[in-house]
Amino acid sequence: MAEGFADRLMQGIERCGTCACVGIDPVLERLPESLRGGDIADRKRSADLLEQFSKGVIDAVADRVPVIKLNIAFFEPFRGAGVDAYHESVRYAHERGLLVIGDIKRSDIGHSSASYAAAHLIGDGADDDSIPDAVTINGYLGIDGVLPFVEAASNTGRGVFVLVHTSNKSAAQLQHLTLKDDRMVVEEVAALVEAWGQSSIGSSGFSSIGAVAAPGNLEIARKLRSLMPHGIFLVPGFGAQGRSVEQVAACFDEGGRGAIVNASRSVIYAYEEGESSDTTWQESVARACDEFITALKSIHENV
Amino acid sequence: MAEGFADRLMQGIERCGTCACVGIDPVLERLPESLRGGDIADRKRSADLLEQFSKGVIDAVADRVPVIKLNIAFFEPFRGAGVDAYHESVRYAHERGLLVIGDIKRSDIGHSSASYAAAHLIGDGADDDSIPDAVTINGYLGIDGVLPFVEAASNTGRGVFVLVHTSNKSAAQLQHLTLKDDRMVVEEVAALVEAWGQSSIGSSGFSSIGAVAAPGNLEIARKLRSLMPHGIFLVPGFGAQGRSVEQVAACFDEGGRGAIVNASRSVIYAYEEGESSDTTWQESVARACDEFITALKSIHENV
Repeated sequence: MAEGFADRLMQGIERCGTCACVGIDPVLERLPESLRGGDIADRKRSADLLEQFSKGVIDAVADRVPVIKLNIAFFEPFRGAGVDAYHESVRYAHERGLLVIGDIKRSDIGHSSASYAAAHLIGDGADDDSIPDAVTINGYLGIDGVLPFVEAASNTGRGVFVLVHTSNKSAAQLQHLTLKDDRMVVEEVAALVEAWGQSSIGSSGFSSIGAVAAPGNLEIARKLRSLMPHGIFLVPGFGAQGRSVEQVAACFDEGGRGAIVNASRSVIYAYEEGESSDTTWQESVARACDEFITALKSIHENV
Repeated sequence: MAEGFADRLMQGIERCGTCACVGIDPVLERLPESLRGGDIADRKRSADLLEQFSKGVIDAVADRVPVIKLNIAFFEPFRGAGVDAYHESVRYAHERGLLVIGDIKRSDIGHSSASYAAAHLIGDGADDDSIPDAVTINGYLGIDGVLPFVEAASNTGRGVFVLVHTSNKSAAQLQHLTLKDDRMVVEEVAALVEAWGQSSIGSSGFSSIGAVAAPGNLEIARKLRSLMPHGIFLVPGFGAQGRSVEQVAACFDEGGRGAIVNASRSVIYAYEEGESSDTTWQESVARACDEFITALKSIHENV
């Protein structure tokens, strides 16, 4: 049995000296001209291009960060070919030594949830390198929906990030509703996630059942951190979505651990800004990745 | 511009004389022996079998019900081949004159949500018959996550069912939390869904933005019905999950309209019980479908 996801992630962060996660959200129209070429005729060709681009980004960041996040939403418009390109990109990232989070945000119950877990967290088992090391899921249906993923993670040494507090403005419509006892809905979800992760705590002190948490509000961030002492936070919204250093800093524990911070578009599309003829698109991505890592270092001075 | 989903669904219900929806959750190990044959070697062959089974079920129920639900969770373990089998099954159901709900329960925000909507609700446009007429989505992220689907539905004459109250036991962990003003979380979600559907109300009086709602509690069912007067309820849990006639009846409006009721395993695996040598598996499915329709008729006597 391999080590659990939380411990492998913590080791990766230590080795790379950064908790930066690069998110790959490939959009056909934004791919580098050198990749795209002329007209794009069909789904298979489009999916091949997404795969090439994803692999190019992976090559550019593999020696810089411990982990990437692949968002399957951007592969699904190309149906079967797209989904195969997603799994092949997961495999390639593993070949390059990266940990991979599959951003799938699935949710269902019972048999259906178990089938999603089989598809995205088990595959052909712990050795299947085309399956990500962790996936994101939505906990609105409670433990019935979450348990199949938690069990799959436990059986394969993989992990789960449950959506707790998302980075969008309208997150508050449900997540900030005030409960009878004056807590917010997110606080209850956070308490559930901490409970669901109890049996998955590794030697690092963190659980392989973590949380997607990107509170814009400092007070909420601190509250969530205290409610999930064993949860690793996947913090989206750095870069293009504009989270501040202070907001992100509050997601770490007192030792400056327990979170990874994701940037997607600000890194992977860096070549769109100030492209020059003597810099390849991958060099631009690598430079943006380095800038992202540098920006994150200042967070730890704020913890 | 085609008619909206809600109106097409209401016409289908009228034409067939039933609001029964057959859910297709194909599991390889449960397929009829006559289909399965011997060992199943690879993902492509497995996906082909799921597609054959789904088409067989579609043939068995096409003249009986107005609408089916295809759950993509059961296709995804077979990756690209599985997803292509799902879309081909959607296409075939349309060829047989059925409306199709894609049970995908996706959730994300902004660009990601738009990409899911493009994949599952737009495809190549309103004429793309391999795209379902409506999909299920998860509203935990608020309107930012929902809007791309609502817009896609509006632009293509398709529809959306937002998860409001799911049929599982642990649904209560989040959905039944009591808010400061004594309402439950589901009541707020129901109010949001009603608001999100206001611009999609058709001549039938119903909106193409509906709700997955399967309250086990009669009082909650009546409350949700009154909070979503324009919402069509997709009610799961009849049959294998064991909802009673009274519980389901409360999901309809006073005129006995405004809901479709789904049964999956109790219909599509009917051949597992009392298989006889002179009945094909499809005849068993057809008979179970007829029994389901008959059981539903008693609901309308309870409205």
